[in-house]
Amino acid sequence: MPRGGPDADVRLGLATGSLEDPLVVDAAAVLAGRLLAEGGDPERAVTLARTLLPPSTVALLGSWERSRRELADLLDTLTDAERDGTGPLGAHSYPRSAVRLLSPVDRPPTLRDFFAFEDHMVNALKNLGKEVPPEWYEAPSHYVTRSAAVFGADETGQWPAYTEMLDYELEFAVVIGKRGRDVAPEDAWSHIAGLTIFNDLSARDVQRREMGTRVGPAKTKGFDNGCALGPYLVTTDEIARPFAAGMRALVNGAQWSSGTAASIHWSIEQLVAHASAGETLQPGDVLGSGTVGTGAGIEIDRWIKPGDTIRLEIDGLGALETRVERP
Amino acid sequence: MPRGGPDADVRLGLATGSLEDPLVVDAAAVLAGRLLAEGGDPERAVTLARTLLPPSTVALLGSWERSRRELADLLDTLTDAERDGTGPLGAHSYPRSAVRLLSPVDRPPTLRDFFAFEDHMVNALKNLGKEVPPEWYEAPSHYVTRSAAVFGADETGQWPAYTEMLDYELEFAVVIGKRGRDVAPEDAWSHIAGLTIFNDLSARDVQRREMGTRVGPAKTKGFDNGCALGPYLVTTDEIARPFAAGMRALVNGAQWSSGTAASIHWSIEQLVAHASAGETLQPGDVLGSGTVGTGAGIEIDRWIKPGDTIRLEIDGLGALETRVERP
Repeated sequence: MPRGGPDADVRLGLATGSLEDPLVVDAAAVLAGRLLAEGGDPERAVTLARTLLPPSTVALLGSWERSRRELADLLDTLTDAERDGTGPLGAHSYPRSAVRLLSPVDRPPTLRDFFAFEDHMVNALKNLGKEVPPEWYEAPSHYVTRSAAVFGADETGQWPAYTEMLDYELEFAVVIGKRGRDVAPEDAWSHIAGLTIFNDLSARDVQRREMGTRVGPAKTKGFDNGCALGPYLVTTDEIARPFAAGMRALVNGAQWSSGTAASIHWSIEQLVAHASAGETLQPGDVLGSGTVGTGAGIEIDRWIKPGDTIRLEIDGLGALETRVERP
Repeated sequence: MPRGGPDADVRLGLATGSLEDPLVVDAAAVLAGRLLAEGGDPERAVTLARTLLPPSTVALLGSWERSRRELADLLDTLTDAERDGTGPLGAHSYPRSAVRLLSPVDRPPTLRDFFAFEDHMVNALKNLGKEVPPEWYEAPSHYVTRSAAVFGADETGQWPAYTEMLDYELEFAVVIGKRGRDVAPEDAWSHIAGLTIFNDLSARDVQRREMGTRVGPAKTKGFDNGCALGPYLVTTDEIARPFAAGMRALVNGAQWSSGTAASIHWSIEQLVAHASAGETLQPGDVLGSGTVGTGAGIEIDRWIKPGDTIRLEIDGLGALETRVERP
């Protein structure tokens, strides 16, 4: 389920067909068309469709049980005419190339990023001359970063002026679809709406300073257009458990990184449960997995440069391409 | 400028008179009354007043130059009848004791907390057996925490179930009123709408683990009802520069901490400039100063317990009282 549409007009898109080249259906336009065909008032049809299927996925996730039924029903009953036609909100569907995908979560209430892969910790800390601290094995580790940093598949990443060592991170992210606090691991999956790909751009030279002060990554991460999410939110009904997908990073077409989600040390359910202790999970909250082993340039001592394109592929989630540019 | 009102009805409140015992004026109610008196349509009067002076201060700050003129004009021309009367939105003004103050910023787009006081770093790290790292002197240090953790003066703080060592932190906070990126220190003050008091509740036992992993405070801080802000947003026209106010913390009425904002190592302007590098400051963003020297229990080895009330006083900003309770 991607977000976005042509020009500045943001719509909720439903991706059908292949992950690489889907047809993107303007869900609210289809619904408005149906309401009109039933003899409804045009203004009411548009208002109702945009309220049930809003362009904000955080709003959509705020009533996710209802929303998913609405979307599933719409997709199950989609007619050829609806795929091809136009309605009161404009065209009904578009080829992937005709839309500009924004982040599948417009503005997470809280954006957490974990460090759940042991291999990444070992490799990344080795390059900083350190070992994995014993505390890492006691509980999942994460930090909170700026929700305002989120951007989507068809937007450009920022190479901040203050860094000479920007890096990519090959991660997946969990998107919350149900409120909850103090969630037990065995209940955690029911709080998840779906998964997406996450490229957590990181300024490694700044990170050396910020790790020294032990307050965590601040200017290192979460700058404007620093957190790429997308291209789609793949809902849990399409995700195999346990999630064990192959993960790859390609820079300008050449493969630099490869790993598997199966190598995660802390399970998705453990991450959700840990996040929810004393904190109310909100629909639209995003939990990054942390980088898979060898999934960042610092682990393999290879470095991107301004203008490069990083393509993250995760089996079942699609491919998230990000070009990074100095502002 | 506090937020809140009686019962569940959230309003924008303008505090006039003393900081300790102000009269709280329902700004939108006064404005609606004036529009009605001019012969306006009642429904339009209410809609217009609530749009110009919305209950969300983040919305209000989103047009801060206009909003502050509207508020200043309203306050300058307030009549005795308006102070005492009632209008189409209900009563116009209330004694402090009749309103329940929420956070003066309903939901900061980004909530950053700095560590800008050197004394606190020295004292707090001494108790963890560490020294202030040299990186701390290279640039301001901060972390991002959960905006959803924010609560106000008349709400209760959470003592999370997972900690036995909850602590208070005596801080002030800067509230942003103008968008901007890569702001120079000499321009930084113009991006500030005002200041408020910040009690950043912190789980010290958890912090030992999280400092070990160097990813910063995650479960340590920012849990539900973990970040007390208030009681008011004191606008910059009422703030002397440089900000050098006396700061005190009292626990159950006994003074535990005292310090001065003048002892800050990194200036407010440096904090704002640092935050804005590569990141767009948004109206409603909150920047905590960090704890003033001796402004936390860990520095003086005194520890609060569930049911205690912490009162933070900052000259010119009022007093923020927070009772902490296990959920």
